[in-house]
Amino acid sequence: MTVSYNLDVSSTSLIAFLKLQLRWRGSVWKSVMRELLIFSLLFAIVTSIYRTNYFLSEEQRLFWDNFSALFDQKLDYIPLTFMLGFFVTIIVGRWNDIFLNIGWVDNTALLIATYIRGSDEKSRILRRTTLRYMVLTQVIIFRDISMRVRKRFPTLETVVAAGFMLESEREKYVELNLKYNKYFLPIQWCYSLLYEARAQGKIGADVMLNELIKSVGDFRRGLGQLCNFDWVPIPLVYPQVVFLAVRIYFFLCLIARQSVLIDGEPPKDSSPVYPFVPFLMTSLQFIFYVGWMKVAESLMNPLGEDDDDFECNFLLDRNLATGLAIVDDCYNDSPPIQKDIFWS
Amino acid sequence: MTVSYNLDVSSTSLIAFLKLQLRWRGSVWKSVMRELLIFSLLFAIVTSIYRTNYFLSEEQRLFWDNFSALFDQKLDYIPLTFMLGFFVTIIVGRWNDIFLNIGWVDNTALLIATYIRGSDEKSRILRRTTLRYMVLTQVIIFRDISMRVRKRFPTLETVVAAGFMLESEREKYVELNLKYNKYFLPIQWCYSLLYEARAQGKIGADVMLNELIKSVGDFRRGLGQLCNFDWVPIPLVYPQVVFLAVRIYFFLCLIARQSVLIDGEPPKDSSPVYPFVPFLMTSLQFIFYVGWMKVAESLMNPLGEDDDDFECNFLLDRNLATGLAIVDDCYNDSPPIQKDIFWS
Amino acid sequence: MTVSYNLDVSSTSLIAFLKLQLRWRGSVWKSVMRELLIFSLLFAIVTSIYRTNYFLSEEQRLFWDNFSALFDQKLDYIPLTFMLGFFVTIIVGRWNDIFLNIGWVDNTALLIATYIRGSDEKSRILRRTTLRYMVLTQVIIFRDISMRVRKRFPTLETVVAAGFMLESEREKYVELNLKYNKYFLPIQWCYSLLYEARAQGKIGADVMLNELIKSVGDFRRGLGQLCNFDWVPIPLVYPQVVFLAVRIYFFLCLIARQSVLIDGEPPKDSSPVYPFVPFLMTSLQFIFYVGWMKVAESLMNPLGEDDDDFECNFLLDRNLATGLAIVDDCYNDSPPIQKDIFWS
Amino acid sequence: MTVSYNLDVSSTSLIAFLKLQLRWRGSVWKSVMRELLIFSLLFAIVTSIYRTNYFLSEEQRLFWDNFSALFDQKLDYIPLTFMLGFFVTIIVGRWNDIFLNIGWVDNTALLIATYIRGSDEKSRILRRTTLRYMVLTQVIIFRDISMRVRKRFPTLETVVAAGFMLESEREKYVELNLKYNKYFLPIQWCYSLLYEARAQGKIGADVMLNELIKSVGDFRRGLGQLCNFDWVPIPLVYPQVVFLAVRIYFFLCLIARQSVLIDGEPPKDSSPVYPFVPFLMTSLQFIFYVGWMKVAESLMNPLGEDDDDFECNFLLDRNLATGLAIVDDCYNDSPPIQKDIFWS
Amino acid sequence: MTVSYNLDVSSTSLIAFLKLQLRWRGSVWKSVMRELLIFSLLFAIVTSIYRTNYFLSEEQRLFWDNFSALFDQKLDYIPLTFMLGFFVTIIVGRWNDIFLNIGWVDNTALLIATYIRGSDEKSRILRRTTLRYMVLTQVIIFRDISMRVRKRFPTLETVVAAGFMLESEREKYVELNLKYNKYFLPIQWCYSLLYEARAQGKIGADVMLNELIKSVGDFRRGLGQLCNFDWVPIPLVYPQVVFLAVRIYFFLCLIARQSVLIDGEPPKDSSPVYPFVPFLMTSLQFIFYVGWMKVAESLMNPLGEDDDDFECNFLLDRNLATGLAIVDDCYNDSPPIQKDIFWS
Repeated sequence: MTVSYNLDVSSTSLIAFLKLQLRWRGSVWKSVMRELLIFSLLFAIVTSIYRTNYFLSEEQRLFWDNFSALFDQKLDYIPLTFMLGFFVTIIVGRWNDIFLNIGWVDNTALLIATYIRGSDEKSRILRRTTLRYMVLTQVIIFRDISMRVRKRFPTLETVVAAGFMLESEREKYVELNLKYNKYFLPIQWCYSLLYEARAQGKIGADVMLNELIKSVGDFRRGLGQLCNFDWVPIPLVYPQVVFLAVRIYFFLCLIARQSVLIDGEPPKDSSPVYPFVPFLMTSLQFIFYVGWMKVAESLMNPLGEDDDDFECNFLLDRNLATGLAIVDDCYNDSPPIQKDIFWS
Repeated sequence: MTVSYNLDVSSTSLIAFLKLQLRWRGSVWKSVMRELLIFSLLFAIVTSIYRTNYFLSEEQRLFWDNFSALFDQKLDYIPLTFMLGFFVTIIVGRWNDIFLNIGWVDNTALLIATYIRGSDEKSRILRRTTLRYMVLTQVIIFRDISMRVRKRFPTLETVVAAGFMLESEREKYVELNLKYNKYFLPIQWCYSLLYEARAQGKIGADVMLNELIKSVGDFRRGLGQLCNFDWVPIPLVYPQVVFLAVRIYFFLCLIARQSVLIDGEPPKDSSPVYPFVPFLMTSLQFIFYVGWMKVAESLMNPLGEDDDDFECNFLLDRNLATGLAIVDDCYNDSPPIQKDIFWS
Repeated sequence: MTVSYNLDVSSTSLIAFLKLQLRWRGSVWKSVMRELLIFSLLFAIVTSIYRTNYFLSEEQRLFWDNFSALFDQKLDYIPLTFMLGFFVTIIVGRWNDIFLNIGWVDNTALLIATYIRGSDEKSRILRRTTLRYMVLTQVIIFRDISMRVRKRFPTLETVVAAGFMLESEREKYVELNLKYNKYFLPIQWCYSLLYEARAQGKIGADVMLNELIKSVGDFRRGLGQLCNFDWVPIPLVYPQVVFLAVRIYFFLCLIARQSVLIDGEPPKDSSPVYPFVPFLMTSLQFIFYVGWMKVAESLMNPLGEDDDDFECNFLLDRNLATGLAIVDDCYNDSPPIQKDIFWS
Repeated sequence: MTVSYNLDVSSTSLIAFLKLQLRWRGSVWKSVMRELLIFSLLFAIVTSIYRTNYFLSEEQRLFWDNFSALFDQKLDYIPLTFMLGFFVTIIVGRWNDIFLNIGWVDNTALLIATYIRGSDEKSRILRRTTLRYMVLTQVIIFRDISMRVRKRFPTLETVVAAGFMLESEREKYVELNLKYNKYFLPIQWCYSLLYEARAQGKIGADVMLNELIKSVGDFRRGLGQLCNFDWVPIPLVYPQVVFLAVRIYFFLCLIARQSVLIDGEPPKDSSPVYPFVPFLMTSLQFIFYVGWMKVAESLMNPLGEDDDDFECNFLLDRNLATGLAIVDDCYNDSPPIQKDIFWS
Repeated sequence: MTVSYNLDVSSTSLIAFLKLQLRWRGSVWKSVMRELLIFSLLFAIVTSIYRTNYFLSEEQRLFWDNFSALFDQKLDYIPLTFMLGFFVTIIVGRWNDIFLNIGWVDNTALLIATYIRGSDEKSRILRRTTLRYMVLTQVIIFRDISMRVRKRFPTLETVVAAGFMLESEREKYVELNLKYNKYFLPIQWCYSLLYEARAQGKIGADVMLNELIKSVGDFRRGLGQLCNFDWVPIPLVYPQVVFLAVRIYFFLCLIARQSVLIDGEPPKDSSPVYPFVPFLMTSLQFIFYVGWMKVAESLMNPLGEDDDDFECNFLLDRNLATGLAIVDDCYNDSPPIQKDIFWS
């Protein structure tokens, strides 16, 4: 389920800030928590080896002092900030494109209800079926690209059981022998129905039929885009490099950030509090960078199972229910027109 | 209300700069002021603890010197600049998309006035109602996504009272039993009216009807986009990380920026003026970074209640008034055509 | 007037570079000159106070040495580069959108000349008036968003005098009582004319009328975009923060850049030439940053009065003259068709 | 073949991270491996010359210490991060455009199957041929821009043999004498067929014919874009500069990174372990930067032969098979319409 | 002529890298060579003055040591990287837009060949002339915005001689008295021809005429965009600032990079080899930055005369030849349709 927080930010203030931070679902806290704990634990272990006298001789400690200082200095060879910045921007662009093509039937449903006339049973079935075929296409495609929809509909039989498909349609669908995907089939049936409706005069003009065909075609094209995005992801190298860089960086921090130097010199008095500063700052850095990385991770597959991912199942149910309401329940059911209150 | 300042920047000069800076509504000053005061106060408190002799012994001060110097050095682990830069760019892109879909009826109103003919009362009502249904859709959607519109129209009754809806329409609207939103309903009525107008010959050709349907559909699609943007915001992690980073950064500055070092060395003479420099610079930094962050905060929900947010209520009133003027008052009311002054 | 320099850069060479730099109108030199002079003067004053022995004792100088060094070091708290980089990118995007919607009548004029037939006086007036209404809309809108057009047409009477409007049209326009803008009115008249032309058979088919209506509508939509950009500028906070940052930065440089240190140490021999280096470099920095900022300032309101701003008045005259030439002078005036020289 | 990894990232977790990293095909490991080995080997050789006593006297070593330290310090003259960041962003944009125009026949095939009526043999041939001409265009264009398709179809005869073209068509194609490319020819045949189908009444209305023509035209335009992208690549200077910068950088690292300094000082005790740190960090840097560069390299020519490149041959086969299934096998073969399970 | 190198990068490997680097036309080498030589020469002169004993006393050298060290340190006041990064991104975006509007006639030519029927001489002339008028428009516009086309066609007579225009058309063109450009004229003739073709029944339906008109209009709109881009370039300040910054930077390097310091200290032994390191690194920096700048310079005016610029003359010839082939030679000349090899 997507996480909505618009209300919390309807004005900019400290309270809005706190409200935003105190959310849990889909929050940076939830997504970073576990890894932060592991990191802190490991850091503490290394520190206790390094700072207490049980494990290292004085000489060894000197060696480690230099060793970790050296590491600390070379850490900025890893260009985390830019990789993340540019990568997240690209991912957000792609996520936006996916989001724009996710598929709403309202437009087409309204056209169907307006252009296909007739209150008899056959006309009603025709309108309902046309609409259902659109949602069916969405179901079939979502099954292949969204893990959650796949879990809900493991087989076509379950799709039939849920009412998106009829048994006779399932048979026709399975019957077709083609080694590539068959997403186009319900759309083709849909087009056939529309053509037939025109032939029977239920649609009043060719230009209306054409408009309907185009509207269904736009819907199909959007879903086709989703398949394409699924077929050709961002080249694997890119996320690999970025995600690896972040993790390696913090792994090296376990050693590098043990070093406590001020402008290259250890502080004159040696308080046990000092090592706490690099630890705190590194933890914060961990939260910000790993949190930033999580943005990329969760946006990379927006049809997945993260808190922030699109609610595909909701969309399917909503599309069918709303679509049927439009093409059937609300068909020819307008209020009578009257003068409005500004009439003069 | 949006804040307009185009006149102030119609030419680039020092005076234009000053005019721009001296505005209050929607300004960085207004949005940063309160938090800057709090920050300065806290900073002063910490300084007075740190610099005066009442609280710390000389030894403790040495410790704090090192401590804050250490903090100061590690502060740049927090990648403020890039996070803000990339984040604001993404937010501005989204804000722009919302802005482009905010919904103006002029186009459709002009088409209605041109294509639906007839000066009798029924034709006039038909034109007015078609237009009103479009604005009604906007009202219903804005009630759900804009806090200000919600405050103006807490119930559908208030919408009726304001004249956007008739009582009979409200009943029809409420009557429909659907667990999803019913934004489509007024558009469906609108389509029905248009279809009927064609059937009665008030619209002269199928291609004109189709154009009208498409125009209303475009309007609806824009509003649908607004709903989608409301439904799927930028993943929560992103703003959380960015806003948290900024605030943590300046919180840590309270300690870190007490340190006064020039290239790692304290200045040889100890003037009480020196600590003022990091304070001043940190305050400026505060203004710039928090101001930058405010850009993001106020753009994130452009339908909210900030100074800069879109004036949705104004838009609704304007759409209805202008729309009715177009489809009714100005219907068939052109000036006589004559030769222009360049005629030869 | 926009500044054209494409010819200077038709090939990349040192000479092209020099040609580009030696321009004055709309150049960085012109826009930066005055502020650079002021800056240099102030800098010189501060230097002469600081370096000569008239004003400061040796002790005070030591203090100021440290003071300015401290400032110099903290100057990079101000993230100029990124703020400017990201801000300019956003502004350029918006500028481009405005530029794409600035409004050319050629397309529609060509359609009018092709689809509205008849060489009699009435047909000619009809074609001319249709076209003139489009330009009139542009005039009325530009008066409200462009300072230069406002100056040229302070009242509607001046618009009438310039021939964009007839007196009878001005009366109709003024007559309409609406508290919102009335930009739509000439377009509505234009639509009426087109509809009438179809009714009289001057336009041969509904599909042609529809194409004309759409073409005029596209023109109107572009102008509508301009109004929207005027109505909702980039939130004030953003330019305020960026422009303030640049100016504050260089104000602080007046003190900070007095410091002459090499890796934190003053040079061993004290030559009076050394202070010249930070001054020179700061001046260059001034040119580059303030020049960069000027890009943003001049693009922020591209309909303003800067050298680089769009020539709205030129566009209006050009649109009317070219439009009338197309719809009237060149109507039905093609050369006879013959075999071309490649005929075989 | 493109490398799909969406399933691995359907949720964000450590395991998802590992799954992503452990892939080989199209991975950073595969693309960086060889060059990393060479780099490491060279680095080891230089180190062994530098650190062992066989080759350098103590004096020479001192010289080299300074020499490499100097190099190390100047290395950041090379602005790797930004060049890569901006370059990759531009390349990704272009790659996305190519990807959107790669060409799917489904839309048009569905239109053909709906609008061209008739179950007789001639109608079937007509539908099949129309579709085949579209795919043929794709074959002919892909032969010129994709290495893999060129290898599969070195001559037109092989295209005929694969069934995309008939012998008579090949003759016609070869017959035309034109010194520019002839990609348009099959589309022109396709248009002719469609026009004829309308003339024979197989297409019911002009508006349908027009829709078909537009749909085929869109397909052609997409392929035309591909040719244009092939004709005008990103100016050569850009990739040259970026790729050269990365390689020169790491070549210089072979010397520069031999230096082991902590804040400009060699560590007090000289452990043989220290030189290992810069080597390790430079190797990591190598992986990240060269990996990042590989993203650009593999996206620059997405129709090439890298693991990540588009599977053009697959697309051709798929387009033909699916297209023929749509226009012929599934023609007029819808399931009977019945009441759905939500009927009330 | 554009420089094509796609084949060289069809797979990512070291060899592909070398192939890419070893090109000369349009390469970084060619564009940077001359300036690099000048820079190196000047650098050598300054070095020989600075390092040899002929010109400077020991004292003076000490002064210069400090002086150049100071310069070196302040050099990073100039924000080269970001200016170039952001600027190049904006320029690439604009270049892309120009490239998309460069104008291909294929689409329209195919429509003309399909929709305008008749094999008699008059129909053929009509089709050829329609097409020629489109290319003529392109010629006339390109003459004003591309240096190369201007050189090829210095006068309209040369256009006539080349066959793009007939003498009678030239006269008509010259005859029209308008103080603005007359690019629209051939398009208006083209529209007239199309309208006449419809009137004579050569075009079968209004919807086809409309489609043709729209297609020619799209072509014209693209060319109009080119004019607009020529009319309103990126504001002069931006390229001035960026190009100046690059050149000033390297000019200052002539002095600044004479300094040889390791962490602020001169190396203990003074080898004459050391100064070579900053020189080498600065040369590399020169190649990368100036090369990057050349990308911007050559993209800024893509219709100019650089190696990488669009081949406008080629395009004109190609458009005319291909267009005539489509509308005339290949008119009604499809192969007979037969069963394909997959027929079952």
